[in-house]
Amino acid sequence: MPRWDPEAKERLRAAALELFTEHGYENATVTQITARAGLTRRTFSRYFADKRDVLFAGSEQLPDAMADAVRHADPALPPFQALLAALVAAGDLFAGLVSQAAQRRAVIASSPELQERERTKLAAVTEAVVEALRERGATESSAKMLAQVGTAVFQTAFERWSDQPADTDFATQVQEAAAELAAHLTP
Amino acid sequence: MPRWDPEAKERLRAAALELFTEHGYENATVTQITARAGLTRRTFSRYFADKRDVLFAGSEQLPDAMADAVRHADPALPPFQALLAALVAAGDLFAGLVSQAAQRRAVIASSPELQERERTKLAAVTEAVVEALRERGATESSAKMLAQVGTAVFQTAFERWSDQPADTDFATQVQEAAAELAAHLTP
Repeated sequence: MPRWDPEAKERLRAAALELFTEHGYENATVTQITARAGLTRRTFSRYFADKRDVLFAGSEQLPDAMADAVRHADPALPPFQALLAALVAAGDLFAGLVSQAAQRRAVIASSPELQERERTKLAAVTEAVVEALRERGATESSAKMLAQVGTAVFQTAFERWSDQPADTDFATQVQEAAAELAAHLTP
Repeated sequence: MPRWDPEAKERLRAAALELFTEHGYENATVTQITARAGLTRRTFSRYFADKRDVLFAGSEQLPDAMADAVRHADPALPPFQALLAALVAAGDLFAGLVSQAAQRRAVIASSPELQERERTKLAAVTEAVVEALRERGATESSAKMLAQVGTAVFQTAFERWSDQPADTDFATQVQEAAAELAAHLTP
């Protein structure tokens, strides 16, 4: 039996994104994806449950990863600064995905079902971060607001980074998005 | 044929929330709701499509209402201040719902299907607000971040208000939530 092969996984992901873009997410099939990647259906099944999973594989680990990053941020940091530090730390998890992020975003925007799945994913992350912020002393109500705002900052920073990954790094994008938001909030 | 009767609508809503709370959202039936309200199924159908609609009736008007409120805010206000003004203006739309808000929130938290519907509703509001903020000069990327943050501020302010409606007004809660957020954002 073949070994775990990150290259096969990446080829399948790239082929899927191409086909979703060319034919539409609804129309593209797993058979087409494996054919384009030059791999078998059996190999596909080793990495992904179905074609939707190509877009969301690994996301079930995100809530715990983000919450842990908040927990492990410098104890001296107040809650929202801890969350920003955690976002920067978590950015490493996405570094490998940045080159395909714009394409993935366009595919998700094309389908109400995928949009819903993306919202569910982000809500699970937000909920896990609420718990971690509470452990750092934020009230339930503040923790909810800060976690939602942190998710908005993360999405903004990641989109901007994936539009021009060569020009800057993710940490800078997070700090700039947070600073921009702070300026908007000050009348 | 009976006239449009806001009291009947309110009695149905109150009966539904009671039954959802007592028996669980999944178990409560429209027959039970109408029986508790002392009204007919025909009357129920005049106001609501189904039991889920009791929790979301009117929400299809929210995106346009919020976007219009942003468009009509004082032209001198910068984007996020215009959004805060719009949130305050839109608060009037919810004043009649505040007494049932905590109960509604608990029902929604009990069901993944309802949580998803609530997220879809908020996403539609956020998207409409993005357009209105762009018309006020914000870039696409900033408008998205500000609209998401505005939704978080709105939810926070509305929850706090509905926990203690007698102590303060909604406008104050919006201003306080925004000020609290600004303080968290400033290192």
